[in-house]
Amino acid sequence: MSRTDDPYFKSYFNLEVHRLMLQDKPRTEAYQQAIVKNAPFFKDKTVMDIGAGTGILSMFCAQAGAQKVYAVEASAMATPLREIVVANQFMNTITVLEGKAEDIDLPNHAKVDIIVSEWMGFYLLHESMLDSVIAARDKHLAPHGIMMPSHARIWSAPVSMSDYFREKVDFWDNVYGFKMPPLKRLMLRSDKPEVDVIQPEQILSEPTLVAEFDLRWVETEEIKSVSQKRFISATATGSFQGLALWFDCDFRPFVETEWVTCATLSTSPSCPSTHWKQTIIVLPVSTDIEQDEVIGWSLTLTQTEGNARHYAIQLEVLDPAVDEHPTPCGCQMAKCALIKALMEKEEEALN
Amino acid sequence: MSRTDDPYFKSYFNLEVHRLMLQDKPRTEAYQQAIVKNAPFFKDKTVMDIGAGTGILSMFCAQAGAQKVYAVEASAMATPLREIVVANQFMNTITVLEGKAEDIDLPNHAKVDIIVSEWMGFYLLHESMLDSVIAARDKHLAPHGIMMPSHARIWSAPVSMSDYFREKVDFWDNVYGFKMPPLKRLMLRSDKPEVDVIQPEQILSEPTLVAEFDLRWVETEEIKSVSQKRFISATATGSFQGLALWFDCDFRPFVETEWVTCATLSTSPSCPSTHWKQTIIVLPVSTDIEQDEVIGWSLTLTQTEGNARHYAIQLEVLDPAVDEHPTPCGCQMAKCALIKALMEKEEEALN
Repeated sequence: MSRTDDPYFKSYFNLEVHRLMLQDKPRTEAYQQAIVKNAPFFKDKTVMDIGAGTGILSMFCAQAGAQKVYAVEASAMATPLREIVVANQFMNTITVLEGKAEDIDLPNHAKVDIIVSEWMGFYLLHESMLDSVIAARDKHLAPHGIMMPSHARIWSAPVSMSDYFREKVDFWDNVYGFKMPPLKRLMLRSDKPEVDVIQPEQILSEPTLVAEFDLRWVETEEIKSVSQKRFISATATGSFQGLALWFDCDFRPFVETEWVTCATLSTSPSCPSTHWKQTIIVLPVSTDIEQDEVIGWSLTLTQTEGNARHYAIQLEVLDPAVDEHPTPCGCQMAKCALIKALMEKEEEALN
Repeated sequence: MSRTDDPYFKSYFNLEVHRLMLQDKPRTEAYQQAIVKNAPFFKDKTVMDIGAGTGILSMFCAQAGAQKVYAVEASAMATPLREIVVANQFMNTITVLEGKAEDIDLPNHAKVDIIVSEWMGFYLLHESMLDSVIAARDKHLAPHGIMMPSHARIWSAPVSMSDYFREKVDFWDNVYGFKMPPLKRLMLRSDKPEVDVIQPEQILSEPTLVAEFDLRWVETEEIKSVSQKRFISATATGSFQGLALWFDCDFRPFVETEWVTCATLSTSPSCPSTHWKQTIIVLPVSTDIEQDEVIGWSLTLTQTEGNARHYAIQLEVLDPAVDEHPTPCGCQMAKCALIKALMEKEEEALN
């Protein structure tokens, strides 16, 4: 029964994960475009690639004319990475450094002009390397330096679950004539999110913003806990069975005097799907929702004590008639609409 | 880059693996058939289910009329398993015992009449629980007791690799214009077997028997190392690129005075595919083979020192013109055909 966690197949499996990530076109092409579109800025610059892996981003930077790229890789991938650099004739530009980016010392404590990294995890933060990227940025990035990506946002929307998920849950009701209720319950535990592609017809409202980070200045304190309390009107009739989370990233650095938009990487259900898919926090109980009905929830993502790369997820469904709404609130209930109108009037008067 | 070994998703992932195994019809239905077909023998018997998991085999035994089933489970599945037993009203028949089967003591050191277990791993032995099953058998099985399954065989055949595999290998030649030779090499390392479904057109000879075990009497010594030296004539023209391994199991216990065939579970490429698929030991170099040409290889599977559940695989391609053939040999080369004919004549003369 331990066929799942078999280290024998792990190095090979990791190789397949690298292939999956490279073949994830929206991901890899966003970086390629961001670096190529911004090539004039890369020219003769010093770059650090945090979590270089197969070296693809480092090689994009070398192609874009970087003078020096530090490809930092903490895992055993550092060894093949060195060979890949040589195979592609980048020995003079790319230097592979084995270790964690925040622990490494650059020659003469040099600073880098650009940090490039693909550090994003499920729903942005899960198992992400963001803490490590922030620490490395504070140690290695020059004051005028830029981050690629430069901005990141987490989004949420109430959703119904797919038929496929329902089948996976209902499977445990009748297994060769037997019922397995604890395994059905485990499928519905809200602290074990489902990673799946959400179809447009599953989405019950407009996307709502959970958090936004400017990666040049974000502090580790800000990512320790992220929360959202939200009431919103449903745009469709359906079963409210979970909250979908996803993220997008901008490559929009502040170069000299202006923001330069180079590329965007979105993992939204309205964009071509990526290996991150969407993350769905499944609710143990389903609620039928009519179009225009108000849906409310409170969501908290908190770094766990033992492991900063893990987040505990708390999702609570709120009763729009009973629970206090934020001020102002975007929902269509009379009181919220009234407060919103009054506040707008007041603001007008002030102007 | 550590999205592969994330314990956060592990318990959930294990649940999906249990579903996959239960939905593996050739597997689950072979056990169901073996137990149901043999129900008269299960009637009022004491059974031990080693590695009970979701309890499906224990419940088949209870249905077949067993008087007592010890469902032994070493993992955290023991807790939901207890609840599953209650949910299906088998509290009086099935007792869940948490621990390793070879460590557990039954009340009054009672012996069991039947051991049921789904212990098979990739190519039978990899990550299998066979050592544990043998030790538990020697401790708990009554002298007249039976094993289900009762017999197991490992088979091999030279194969060409699928187009899909070639694509996965060739992928590393051109990744956004870059080459990644060490990752291509890693895909072809012969000690990391490929698990995939072999299509009939990939198979280059008749299947050959690697090993056969009578599970009632096999000793741990016999599974420490398994080897095969074999020359065989190709039944098709193609590229010899790997050796496929698979297994089958018989449920053919010796009941009182006779062998009773209850069911067979085969993971052969000529049977409906299972979650075990086939295991392919990939050769770093491909050899073009004509139909009727003789192919030779030497294969050794050896338990590793540190972990008895892991096997080191050694595969060497032999040159039929140079390397010594076993005596007798099934290949069509003149010398082997002559020796075989002489031996048959001699045997005839003796009779």
